[in-house]
Amino acid sequence: MITWNNLDKLTSYQELAKTNKVKLAEVMSGENGAKRVKNYSIPMAAGLAYNYAAKQVDEEVLAALGKLAEEAQLTEKFEALYNGEVINTGEKRLVLHHMTRGQLGDAVEADGVDKRAFYVEQQEKIADFANKVHAGEITNAAGEKFTTVVQIGIGGSDLGPRAMYLALENWAKKNNTFKMEAKFISNVDPDDAAAVLNSIDVAHSIFVLVSKSGTTLETLTNESFVKDALKNAGLDASKHMIAVTSETSPLAKSDDYLAAFFMDDYIGGRFSSTSAVGGAVLSLAFGPEVFAQFLEGAAEEDKLAMNKDIRQNPEMLDALIGVYERNVLGYPSTAVLPYSQALSRFPAHLQQLDMESNGKSVNRFGEPIDYVTGPVIFGEPGTNGQHSFYQLLHQGTDIVPLQFVGFKNSQIGTDVVIQDSTSQQKLCANVAAQIVAFACGKEDENRNKNFEGGRPSSIIVGDQLTPQALGALLAHFENKIMFQGFVWNVNSFDQEGVQLGKVLAKRVLAHETDGALKVFSDLLNI
Amino acid sequence: MITWNNLDKLTSYQELAKTNKVKLAEVMSGENGAKRVKNYSIPMAAGLAYNYAAKQVDEEVLAALGKLAEEAQLTEKFEALYNGEVINTGEKRLVLHHMTRGQLGDAVEADGVDKRAFYVEQQEKIADFANKVHAGEITNAAGEKFTTVVQIGIGGSDLGPRAMYLALENWAKKNNTFKMEAKFISNVDPDDAAAVLNSIDVAHSIFVLVSKSGTTLETLTNESFVKDALKNAGLDASKHMIAVTSETSPLAKSDDYLAAFFMDDYIGGRFSSTSAVGGAVLSLAFGPEVFAQFLEGAAEEDKLAMNKDIRQNPEMLDALIGVYERNVLGYPSTAVLPYSQALSRFPAHLQQLDMESNGKSVNRFGEPIDYVTGPVIFGEPGTNGQHSFYQLLHQGTDIVPLQFVGFKNSQIGTDVVIQDSTSQQKLCANVAAQIVAFACGKEDENRNKNFEGGRPSSIIVGDQLTPQALGALLAHFENKIMFQGFVWNVNSFDQEGVQLGKVLAKRVLAHETDGALKVFSDLLNI
Repeated sequence: MITWNNLDKLTSYQELAKTNKVKLAEVMSGENGAKRVKNYSIPMAAGLAYNYAAKQVDEEVLAALGKLAEEAQLTEKFEALYNGEVINTGEKRLVLHHMTRGQLGDAVEADGVDKRAFYVEQQEKIADFANKVHAGEITNAAGEKFTTVVQIGIGGSDLGPRAMYLALENWAKKNNTFKMEAKFISNVDPDDAAAVLNSIDVAHSIFVLVSKSGTTLETLTNESFVKDALKNAGLDASKHMIAVTSETSPLAKSDDYLAAFFMDDYIGGRFSSTSAVGGAVLSLAFGPEVFAQFLEGAAEEDKLAMNKDIRQNPEMLDALIGVYERNVLGYPSTAVLPYSQALSRFPAHLQQLDMESNGKSVNRFGEPIDYVTGPVIFGEPGTNGQHSFYQLLHQGTDIVPLQFVGFKNSQIGTDVVIQDSTSQQKLCANVAAQIVAFACGKEDENRNKNFEGGRPSSIIVGDQLTPQALGALLAHFENKIMFQGFVWNVNSFDQEGVQLGKVLAKRVLAHETDGALKVFSDLLNI
Repeated sequence: MITWNNLDKLTSYQELAKTNKVKLAEVMSGENGAKRVKNYSIPMAAGLAYNYAAKQVDEEVLAALGKLAEEAQLTEKFEALYNGEVINTGEKRLVLHHMTRGQLGDAVEADGVDKRAFYVEQQEKIADFANKVHAGEITNAAGEKFTTVVQIGIGGSDLGPRAMYLALENWAKKNNTFKMEAKFISNVDPDDAAAVLNSIDVAHSIFVLVSKSGTTLETLTNESFVKDALKNAGLDASKHMIAVTSETSPLAKSDDYLAAFFMDDYIGGRFSSTSAVGGAVLSLAFGPEVFAQFLEGAAEEDKLAMNKDIRQNPEMLDALIGVYERNVLGYPSTAVLPYSQALSRFPAHLQQLDMESNGKSVNRFGEPIDYVTGPVIFGEPGTNGQHSFYQLLHQGTDIVPLQFVGFKNSQIGTDVVIQDSTSQQKLCANVAAQIVAFACGKEDENRNKNFEGGRPSSIIVGDQLTPQALGALLAHFENKIMFQGFVWNVNSFDQEGVQLGKVLAKRVLAHETDGALKVFSDLLNI
């Protein structure tokens, strides 16, 4: 029997708050530090590992976190989710994104169909379509091959797929699975669509229109933008566009599209990278096999998230440490720092995933809560960030917990030896050095050069950023955020906070405003 | 006589803390709200305006901020800075970035030369070089024109110039001043350089190596990477590279470069966009006239920053409101939200500018301080952010102050009318709506759909993102951050917090590690 309690009602949370604070600089120094790095590590899928040696935890804190996991029934709640209970209570919906890459529990039937079979069917349809495009069986009206795919979507239909595309672009080129260049149009700013259209050959481009509801203002506006461009080039838009939408949307059965692939209301936009939303563009760009490998990595990681033992469940432990940092230690933000240029937009995706899921002030029953929830998430790739905002991370007045990601090998493999080391070794040396610098600091008589240390971080380490590793990485964070939502007792799967702005924007466009809104509208010449 | 006091020693700060808190939802509603939007606005350069109607201030708070500005001697400190005093006390250096775009006060002589004349000379040398490249007078060895410019630099040699390039790329194309495509190599991750090199025609590319000291590890490594690529293509690297560095650096008089342009120790990397660091790449990309217009906008804004009256000094007021939000209201982060896709990397530049300048825990004398300083800065363009992290901004448990930027007109001008409005109107309607939604909120019986409001924002509004407007925008934030550093009594112009990581990384590469660092190094296969 699952009970949904607020965090501050849990006995184990009160106990957690009373544990002794770990002095990170102390425990991470000397042989004890070396032991921690060896022991505080959990294997992940695709050869990754989650290492939390440099987090402010010890056996006492970990034991308390274990009790919290138990009392908050994290495993049982995850089980309820993947077995098809209505976990998205606000919108009264199932939450089935895990099922786009595997089936963890019972068969789930909804809308009269087996959902796993439905997602597999969509994936197969996409694979078939992509193969035909690559083989030149589906072409433009002149019978010529498509060379570019352009995703039109915003939010979850943009950030995730774009981050995943950038993450695998060089890998695919290196491994001869690169099929088509992908571009993305998201912003309603007309310069976004205009610039992308100016940069491509529209006659050889296929556009993927992505909107679950089929009513997203930005996306429909940009669709018209693209259709105008195709028309102006003397082309038949319906021969250049496919749709990814829900079966009940106005786009689903329209003749305006070459094909339509389906997602449904059980996949939140920000959790849709492994559904048709990511599937269409990534399968077209890299081939369906690469997309399937990406799903495999995610599915393998999902299985680890089922483990009741937090010491063997990287997602659950990461989630619990995050709650401890936010609610007990009082740290208000978290930085995501991948030491991989290919992950340049991964932090932007996690920013949505995390902040839109858990940036809530009411619990899942709509009651106000008395503790803080989701932190601010931000980040840039290392080593770039080292030459930018790391100053504040090292010596600022607030402590910012850090999430590093690093890989032993580069994707392209072209490298250069300078001063006896390769660039890849320099990259790895930097992330190792940063973890220790943040944790241990370094005393200096000159206070301006003094580093207090005590700044916690974890790292996910892998061999190489492959499609499987990327899937595992994505699933890790999706599941982490889900577990944190369970602990905070919020509904991580709705986003009512985005509605008011939409309503007011419509009012501005209809010129139905007064007061401050009217004057701002005048200022902006609307 | 200037005295440098800690913020908490100032009487006016104690008084500020005692002012009544403004109830934003109340004061922004009805006719009072309309009046605030009209009155709480300061003209900026290039037709921009800084509107702070939706900030938590009123006449009482503004009066207290005015007193704080006076007691903290902000105008006098700025005067001391541009007149050439040693404001960067840690490194014992002048701070002269304003002089790259104008002269606000006395002539400043250093290193035996008039510094304004020195910066103008560098700008003229760059303009001459760029014109010759564009005219085909400086070419590759085969006598063919260069078509691409690639900046090699990291941190301030990358983020600012890159953000400015992206900000003006479409404007320049539209206004027929686009000369060459620019690319950027920054990360020591070998995949960064390899991917850029794979995407260009090296035979027709000119590389700008940017390192003040001439010793930046990442930049020198990437230079070798590029030289290898040029050599492998059978090209003479010295015919494809220019250097931007200080006159005393090892790069300054090397035969390895077609030309060298100079900056000096009085320009911090993050403040170097208006020096040769931004000048070379932007003049090559868009022509020296466009770069000159960018400098004009910055120079004009700098003059406004000299005003003693905070109601006529957008930079100083913005700075003071930020301090009030951080130290009195206790908000730990700030989001920068440009409603302009062209400003997609402007927040990343501001993230460095702000966090590296003011993320400090000691005052300018190296003494510990007892109050918080620089906040975490993050942001993405709107409307994209609305479909991402705005959920937390609207309904999360922490309040995040917001900095909007919006323009009445797009850069390219291609647009489409859907439901009676253009995309540009939709973009503007959204930013207007967001300001009011954040400030006023909206009650709903369903607490999940309730918006408490009271979330402060300001907006900088302009006609169009032109080179002048971009210069003004950049100078606004540079000066805001400088004033905040004065208020917090920190040295905003050094960055000792980045040193420890560098030292430890070198140790890792030399295999001189033990304890945790050794095990992390092994994990990462170094």
